[in-house]
Amino acid sequence: MRHYYHHNNPITLESGASLPELTIAYDTFGEINDDRSNVVWVMHALTADSDVADWWPHTVESGKFLDPDKWFIVCANVLGSCYGTTGPMSTNPETGRPYFDSFPDVTVRDMVMCHRLLAKHLDIERIHTIVGSSLGGFQAIEWLVTEPEIARRAILIATDYQCRPWLAAINKSMYMAIEADGTLGEQRHDAATKGLAAARAIGLLSYRGQSAYDTTQADKGDEHKPFERRVHSYQAYQGKKLCDRFDVYSYLKMCRSTDSHDIARGRMSAEAALARVKARCLVVAISSDILFPPAYHHELAAMLPDATYREIDSEFAHDGFLIEHDKLNSIISSF
Amino acid sequence: MRHYYHHNNPITLESGASLPELTIAYDTFGEINDDRSNVVWVMHALTADSDVADWWPHTVESGKFLDPDKWFIVCANVLGSCYGTTGPMSTNPETGRPYFDSFPDVTVRDMVMCHRLLAKHLDIERIHTIVGSSLGGFQAIEWLVTEPEIARRAILIATDYQCRPWLAAINKSMYMAIEADGTLGEQRHDAATKGLAAARAIGLLSYRGQSAYDTTQADKGDEHKPFERRVHSYQAYQGKKLCDRFDVYSYLKMCRSTDSHDIARGRMSAEAALARVKARCLVVAISSDILFPPAYHHELAAMLPDATYREIDSEFAHDGFLIEHDKLNSIISSF
Repeated sequence: MRHYYHHNNPITLESGASLPELTIAYDTFGEINDDRSNVVWVMHALTADSDVADWWPHTVESGKFLDPDKWFIVCANVLGSCYGTTGPMSTNPETGRPYFDSFPDVTVRDMVMCHRLLAKHLDIERIHTIVGSSLGGFQAIEWLVTEPEIARRAILIATDYQCRPWLAAINKSMYMAIEADGTLGEQRHDAATKGLAAARAIGLLSYRGQSAYDTTQADKGDEHKPFERRVHSYQAYQGKKLCDRFDVYSYLKMCRSTDSHDIARGRMSAEAALARVKARCLVVAISSDILFPPAYHHELAAMLPDATYREIDSEFAHDGFLIEHDKLNSIISSF
Repeated sequence: MRHYYHHNNPITLESGASLPELTIAYDTFGEINDDRSNVVWVMHALTADSDVADWWPHTVESGKFLDPDKWFIVCANVLGSCYGTTGPMSTNPETGRPYFDSFPDVTVRDMVMCHRLLAKHLDIERIHTIVGSSLGGFQAIEWLVTEPEIARRAILIATDYQCRPWLAAINKSMYMAIEADGTLGEQRHDAATKGLAAARAIGLLSYRGQSAYDTTQADKGDEHKPFERRVHSYQAYQGKKLCDRFDVYSYLKMCRSTDSHDIARGRMSAEAALARVKARCLVVAISSDILFPPAYHHELAAMLPDATYREIDSEFAHDGFLIEHDKLNSIISSF
């Protein structure tokens, strides 16, 4: 069920920029129990929203790891996104018009600051399990380091404790595609949609990788014309699909937040930062993930004080975290 | 040494389109021997030219595998490129102006047709060794199938016998970035340079991959600002560098030629086509290549009648074929 928390005070971001007001859109599933000990907090990835039951199929179900009969599940749309939480398409109360490209850059730490405001509003002092994949995992790790007492357990899937050069290079390639679109900067929600579609196509390459493309997008033998490939339509379609549900300014905020992710910033080192974590962690990698390969997760698990590493054997690469719900369920159930 | 062959007759392309005339720019190194038995023909990759000594460092040297004291080395710029062979920036004799975007699409088979015209012009009936990496390998494999008697040996590096969905998906993402640039279609050599720069940035992701980026582009710890990453400058710089030496129309022809690559087209199956090859082949994969992973090469080697598979252990991914000249030299020498 969708809710909105209106935090009617200004907030200050890590960059020093401030926002005069903040709305957080969030969904909850199930009921909180009497001693408030059954809270599971799910963090979403780049372009998702707070409706985890929608974007993560077969997880918010009876008997699955986000069982609403057992847990009180909270998922909040992140700061800078476009699904109800304050972002570039929200009305700037100072101008009466959407922020568009004047919205400040947001770090993963700013997103966590908003989660903490929401937790306070919901009177949640302690979370049973924090769950985050991809950018959701970035937030989960940040929260565990910022506030080590917040959670007993954490499930960190297809993610990392920093944005490495590889992800930053993918981000920059997306920015370059977006900046090639001369309509970037125009004050409308459908500015730079060609650039945004191209950026999405680039992102998909990194989410699906060689194995998923080769397995699912084969041409039908001799039928295809030399320059026309089935996967061309797929890429174009996926680009358009994102443009129908997202805008370029929010997309840039989401990507730039991933650039900002570095658990070590201002904390001496990643080792020192991660040593603070008190939650028992399950670190899950996908075997074919080229965006966050298993090696990253080995490092993360080794630096966390109490972590178990598990790997899902899948050809779906990074997107495997959305697709391999059966394997994920069995790993998480045993955790 | 750079030469030009002017073929003063029209040529017809696989698509049915024709060109009224054809110039082929090519470089040669060393001297042909009396029985014309020391010819090594090198095919270049996407954005290279005929000067193999320039783009493939430490190979055209005494004692190396392209030893000019021993071999007569030929490398020709491919049809549709912009380094001397007829392409989009060449003058269309029918209009007196460059072709720009009116240049017809070119297949890998069309490129091979031009290589054959040049071989005939040079009175070369038999090649000792054909060498091709990446798009160069596409051409080499096509030539070996089209004219099985042409070469005694072939060295096929970081390449494939078909363009799989993965490569076609990368291509499409580049086209989308280029098409986001509103100046595409303008009749000038510097049209759509922002789109071209973005496309190059995307290409580089696939050539270098996670391992090369993470190894060479690390930020200097806490010094960097949250949203500024060293690799951002690298991607932008590489994009600009390509724009300084290439144009968007030629780049599109090169990429679209790779889309066209399918050894099976009109030949029943890849197995049937590759069974025709008479050359003894060395198939070389790079361990970290995400564009043409080792598995592709295993398949290729298994389908060729006489092939040896070797793998270079390198973190430089697809670009490893340009960088790992020492390892390559030692593998090829033993072949």
